[in-house]
Amino acid sequence: MMPDIETFWRDLNLIRTINPLVLNITNYVVTNNTANALLAISASPIMSFAKDEVEELVGLSAALVINVGTLNAGDIEVMAAAWAAANAKGIPVVFDPVGAGASRLRTDTSLSMLGKYSPSVIRGNASEIMTLAGEAGQSKGVDSSQSAGSAAGIAQALALVNSCVVCVSGEEDMVTDGNEGYRVCGGHEIMPRITGLGCTASAICAAFAAVNKNCLEATVHGMIAMAIAGALAAKKSDGPGSFQMHLYDALYSLTETDVERFMEIYPL
Amino acid sequence: MMPDIETFWRDLNLIRTINPLVLNITNYVVTNNTANALLAISASPIMSFAKDEVEELVGLSAALVINVGTLNAGDIEVMAAAWAAANAKGIPVVFDPVGAGASRLRTDTSLSMLGKYSPSVIRGNASEIMTLAGEAGQSKGVDSSQSAGSAAGIAQALALVNSCVVCVSGEEDMVTDGNEGYRVCGGHEIMPRITGLGCTASAICAAFAAVNKNCLEATVHGMIAMAIAGALAAKKSDGPGSFQMHLYDALYSLTETDVERFMEIYPL
Amino acid sequence: MMPDIETFWRDLNLIRTINPLVLNITNYVVTNNTANALLAISASPIMSFAKDEVEELVGLSAALVINVGTLNAGDIEVMAAAWAAANAKGIPVVFDPVGAGASRLRTDTSLSMLGKYSPSVIRGNASEIMTLAGEAGQSKGVDSSQSAGSAAGIAQALALVNSCVVCVSGEEDMVTDGNEGYRVCGGHEIMPRITGLGCTASAICAAFAAVNKNCLEATVHGMIAMAIAGALAAKKSDGPGSFQMHLYDALYSLTETDVERFMEIYPL
Repeated sequence: MMPDIETFWRDLNLIRTINPLVLNITNYVVTNNTANALLAISASPIMSFAKDEVEELVGLSAALVINVGTLNAGDIEVMAAAWAAANAKGIPVVFDPVGAGASRLRTDTSLSMLGKYSPSVIRGNASEIMTLAGEAGQSKGVDSSQSAGSAAGIAQALALVNSCVVCVSGEEDMVTDGNEGYRVCGGHEIMPRITGLGCTASAICAAFAAVNKNCLEATVHGMIAMAIAGALAAKKSDGPGSFQMHLYDALYSLTETDVERFMEIYPL
Repeated sequence: MMPDIETFWRDLNLIRTINPLVLNITNYVVTNNTANALLAISASPIMSFAKDEVEELVGLSAALVINVGTLNAGDIEVMAAAWAAANAKGIPVVFDPVGAGASRLRTDTSLSMLGKYSPSVIRGNASEIMTLAGEAGQSKGVDSSQSAGSAAGIAQALALVNSCVVCVSGEEDMVTDGNEGYRVCGGHEIMPRITGLGCTASAICAAFAAVNKNCLEATVHGMIAMAIAGALAAKKSDGPGSFQMHLYDALYSLTETDVERFMEIYPL
Repeated sequence: MMPDIETFWRDLNLIRTINPLVLNITNYVVTNNTANALLAISASPIMSFAKDEVEELVGLSAALVINVGTLNAGDIEVMAAAWAAANAKGIPVVFDPVGAGASRLRTDTSLSMLGKYSPSVIRGNASEIMTLAGEAGQSKGVDSSQSAGSAAGIAQALALVNSCVVCVSGEEDMVTDGNEGYRVCGGHEIMPRITGLGCTASAICAAFAAVNKNCLEATVHGMIAMAIAGALAAKKSDGPGSFQMHLYDALYSLTETDVERFMEIYPL
């Protein structure tokens, strides 16, 4: 069944009621943005970089985000410990392979963790997803050189191999579990010009996965929230600085009317 | 004597004149916000994560903030070295036990440091303060599950045990040295929806403690600055993104008229 | 030849066309701002804190920023590896000695790296530049206690010793290669009240150095971009919060008319 206004609105209201705790082992560039986006949508974020506490924090959390945007040896251990604990506890894990393809460290660490632990959702840009699927992704640093559309078949294959949902974000977002899939449209072309909006999307998907066991639906809902909030923010913005500010405001005050006006989703 | 407009205004003007250097050993989520809030109120922030330099930096500083929001082994050593140096030099230390109660690492590290070093001020939410006092704080990650009011007696006891000022922030803020105490009202209900405003409050209290040896008064002044700036920012905001921006602007341009209109303080 | 509107506009358009990858080994306070400023001007930022990947990332990059604002032992190794690789590959390196003079760690690390590796540009405030030149810089934490003008002769000497461009930023910015030099005016007095705008300036200079082998010209262009965007942002701002937001918007939408109206440059 295709996610729709009703399923989206139900899950958003669940987040707003339950305020699920989302644990983030993420990069140093986006800690603040990620926390603010999660708070804006009414989730409760916690960040950790300590191996000594992540198992315990996983035990309190409803979802986990693993983001490799500024890897170092210590953080890799923290990620592994958190991911293992999340798998053991059965809480959803959203994996964001920031910069996979840009360095062997990022590619190898991502592949190695995917070999050992199970993601619920992998969300990346086309270059990153192609890299994880073993294709030369031609990434340019952390920015994609590929369109999301060009990665469709590869995303489906990657989803099947990892028994998870794969989301390729771009001008249009593509979400698939390998069998069923959707395109989410909306947002705005300025979004790649604000750092960490991909990371933000991953965290928002985790908030939805925290309240919906159907990870395909949850991920679609997360990308819809970003697309609608992005479209609303763009209308009020004069550039990337004001866009970032309005995006938090839009995530915070998203109404059913906004969803009716701006939600755009198609079968793949 | 109850802090009043005159004492507040005197201290704010001292900060604006002296620009006291405030050293922050803080978490990775709020480094930027903390620095901007301190600059907005005319203090001069410096951040460090290096054991090799903190003693020296303490020697230059007028106040120290220790914040355990993203602990790791290295940072704990840095905090210990800085705190010991601050105690030796006699400069005020504001301790922010972010997430105490959420993990043993945060709880134990906080208690262990409080056992070894003397804080001038402990500022946290109700869950964190109750945890430090040995009560089950029922924290939810880094967000409180308790109201500030429910922690009043516990805060007084904690203040007496540590011979320091304790501030429990929440809908109303409570500040006590164990004997004398005040409630600071104001701010806005959106404030918990922006990450790191508690951390920001701790840093602002440190700026006031840098210019006023009476830590009870300084802490009340810091919380008043946050409450007034928060009330002003909320009037201009459409959500948490714009609130954050207006908060810096309000801290920057706080006038005597603002203080007259919005300052609300009561004996405990 | 004095940089002028034509050379500035040519380079800005190159950045907007090529989107050069700029690698940043920078401090934990400004990672987000730096990335956003680079994206706003159409460069493609990447941040790394991992020794294992920086050589490889340098191989993809068109410029490198080294910023010592929150040094620790691990990051010093990352910086050394990246800088060595950049020198070997011949890509420009902008060095930002944040807080040199405030601690021996920052001063010694800066001097030691300058002894081993070649910078293309050193950009700092007057206190930092005077410290690197062996003068007592009387720094106050990371804020300067000296005016840029007072550091003119010292900057020239430092440029000659290191065969690089030196930029002293302040109320007016001074850029020199030891022989030729320029003053860039503009910006706004509120700029020191926002954290990390010096770091932002260094990154923007790196974006210009990525498209212009003449580092003197590139650095002047970078400081012009900051000065014009700063002047535009100040016109729309009510304080440091709104200034920061408008600065990104201004960097993003800088027009030839803006440059004609606000560019102010003089020979030294």
